Amino acid sequence: MNKFAEYGIKILPGVAALPEGFSCGAAAGGIREEGRLDVGVLFSELPCASAGVYTRNAVKAAPLLVTREAIEGGDVRAVVANSGNANAATGERGIADARRMQEVAAEALGVGSGEVAVASTGVVGEYLPMEKVARGIRGACEALGRGGEGFARAILTTDTGTKGCVARCEVSGRDVEVWGVAKGSGMIHPNMGTMLAFLATDAAVEKKYLQELLREATRRTFNRVTVDGDTSPNDMAIALANGAAGNVPVAKDSPDHPAFAAAVEGVMRHLAREIARDGEGATKLIEVSVEGARDEESAAALARAVAGSNLVKAAVFGEDANWGRVLVAMGYSGAPFDPGRVEIRFGDVVVFSGGEPAAYDEAEAGAALSGEEVRISARLDEGDGSAEAWGCDLTHGYVEINGSYRT
Amino acid sequence: MNKFAEYGIKILPGVAALPEGFSCGAAAGGIREEGRLDVGVLFSELPCASAGVYTRNAVKAAPLLVTREAIEGGDVRAVVANSGNANAATGERGIADARRMQEVAAEALGVGSGEVAVASTGVVGEYLPMEKVARGIRGACEALGRGGEGFARAILTTDTGTKGCVARCEVSGRDVEVWGVAKGSGMIHPNMGTMLAFLATDAAVEKKYLQELLREATRRTFNRVTVDGDTSPNDMAIALANGAAGNVPVAKDSPDHPAFAAAVEGVMRHLAREIARDGEGATKLIEVSVEGARDEESAAALARAVAGSNLVKAAVFGEDANWGRVLVAMGYSGAPFDPGRVEIRFGDVVVFSGGEPAAYDEAEAGAALSGEEVRISARLDEGDGSAEAWGCDLTHGYVEINGSYRT
Repeated sequence: MNKFAEYGIKILPGVAALPEGFSCGAAAGGIREEGRLDVGVLFSELPCASAGVYTRNAVKAAPLLVTREAIEGGDVRAVVANSGNANAATGERGIADARRMQEVAAEALGVGSGEVAVASTGVVGEYLPMEKVARGIRGACEALGRGGEGFARAILTTDTGTKGCVARCEVSGRDVEVWGVAKGSGMIHPNMGTMLAFLATDAAVEKKYLQELLREATRRTFNRVTVDGDTSPNDMAIALANGAAGNVPVAKDSPDHPAFAAAVEGVMRHLAREIARDGEGATKLIEVSVEGARDEESAAALARAVAGSNLVKAAVFGEDANWGRVLVAMGYSGAPFDPGRVEIRFGDVVVFSGGEPAAYDEAEAGAALSGEEVRISARLDEGDGSAEAWGCDLTHGYVEINGSYRT
Repeated sequence: MNKFAEYGIKILPGVAALPEGFSCGAAAGGIREEGRLDVGVLFSELPCASAGVYTRNAVKAAPLLVTREAIEGGDVRAVVANSGNANAATGERGIADARRMQEVAAEALGVGSGEVAVASTGVVGEYLPMEKVARGIRGACEALGRGGEGFARAILTTDTGTKGCVARCEVSGRDVEVWGVAKGSGMIHPNMGTMLAFLATDAAVEKKYLQELLREATRRTFNRVTVDGDTSPNDMAIALANGAAGNVPVAKDSPDHPAFAAAVEGVMRHLAREIARDGEGATKLIEVSVEGARDEESAAALARAVAGSNLVKAAVFGEDANWGRVLVAMGYSGAPFDPGRVEIRFGDVVVFSGGEPAAYDEAEAGAALSGEEVRISARLDEGDGSAEAWGCDLTHGYVEINGSYRT
């Protein structure tokens, strides 16, 4: 995506470097196995503009409902998150537990309950062990410091490592940072895992604009990741902007909008790719790009269908250059296109063109699937729509992890 | 489905017994490995009313286009089908090859080219070896006889066995039979397999009504089977009715309509279940039934989402009573419902009720998943809509089969 370079934006992997005015803490509350970090707190010493996007699943977990209420009714400046239990499908008691998490954090941080966002991930259908959760929250608040590592670690479930980055850009003459961490959409013990993402920036940002930005970038990044087609009741992305950089607040009509938007989307795209790469059992990241579709929506539908096809995913695992499966997945995407005017490439190898198999070298096509990042691209002749989507290969590991939670 | 019993319809598994006036033949043309049956012919000595339903995939294989043209432009009385090569993504040459298959069969059978339907299944993106195909067609036509076994076997790909049944019912005082065979939607060497189904009945049936019947029953049966969410460019179901039974032709307003429709749907439901049961790598048939949804369409969306969820499929493989995954899949189905008023059962064990986990015995719930047929049901409180869907578990075998086609 050249647009990041175009605006002089650098994206640096890693979770450590929090923007000005933010701190993080984590603790082992005992929700998970002994000594495992399972509660994290992200806190801004200044009030923030805040925004959130939430799962489309009709089943919405309690923490999501409570957080949405807080962000719609005012602004949050803290996030408290736990792993090991999703507090989903837990009825009224679940709502009360999520509110209690807000209260415990608010008390420890010296802010109002309504200034705390809550997120949970883990088992669906069990009540939170509130004593352990409260102990974890207090511990995490006591441990607040300038590093993000503990927080990034505390929210993981079956993820194999932390996921995060920071983008730097200039806004009205001030250097600002956009920091983001996420946990993956792999599935967990014993129910589906969750995609959680938290963004923090020291830029001053107008609230309504922040919400639009988050929604738009989510559409292009998190909504284009597929590990297994499932969405969770707990999925959410939250953004906090505390203005510590002292810039003129960014809004839709400000000259800083394009660069700042590119920084936010750049961070989220990085996280999206890391989530796909770390899908359960995955050995390869699959990046699908579609050009020349009727519009962006069509391009996205085509890219997502390919990235989400079990057959494509299994073929990539086996490093088998099965372009027929790519074409077939495009065919059932619902997006309109003429199969006779499609070019499909694995890496740089053209495998299908003009409605017929291309003359390609099977070994070269296979080689394009042999690395840890596999690029599949399709060029259509319908219009100017383009889009990317990300997925991972389907492996024995996935079946193993999800076939049983009994160890 | 009590409606079959209600009309005195018996459904007998097996592919042997063809209805009056039909014959079948098969041959090893050499498209597949030496000696393997790979071309089948189904033929009616009388002219037929005929109907077809076809894949929704935007990529449509050549034989499908040729067959649709024949059935829309007139009526077919023969089907010629090959396995080992799907003749899909093969451009103009593919169309010419499919027409040549019609011609060769028509000549051998002494009928017009337009009276022959063509179906292919196998590799996507390779041209048909026409000499072998023609030899197979001629051989199959020479081998015509009253048994259906060879035909049912010749159309298989990764299926582990033939799939078929016959239904018997009475229409205007005459005994009629509805015979059906299918091949499964498992994936094949090296691309996606196909769902093919062929129905033959000695009932006299009005053509337009036969088409409606086939479309409606497909909606309730074949369109509710999911093995891995992929559809193929070759999927089709064809019905031939030759009137040998001498009944008053069945039409929409005839008193025989309900019983005859139930017989057709009963045959197709049997085939749908057999296809799901024999999904690639499958060890279990998953039958999902939803009641009390807003309407049938919502119920079908809910049932399909559950049957198609990789997480549910992996949990069933592991015999893990993960009802959270069922609820979550319902949540992303797109169908509206109140999660607080849902009851979910594994077999007869209620696991979720009134928005909260039910008090159930884990061992009993696990036992409900231990057989070769697993029943998952959900009761909503939104209306009168009900539907079934069928799928299979996700296993190491699936990954193995689809990870590589190199032996």
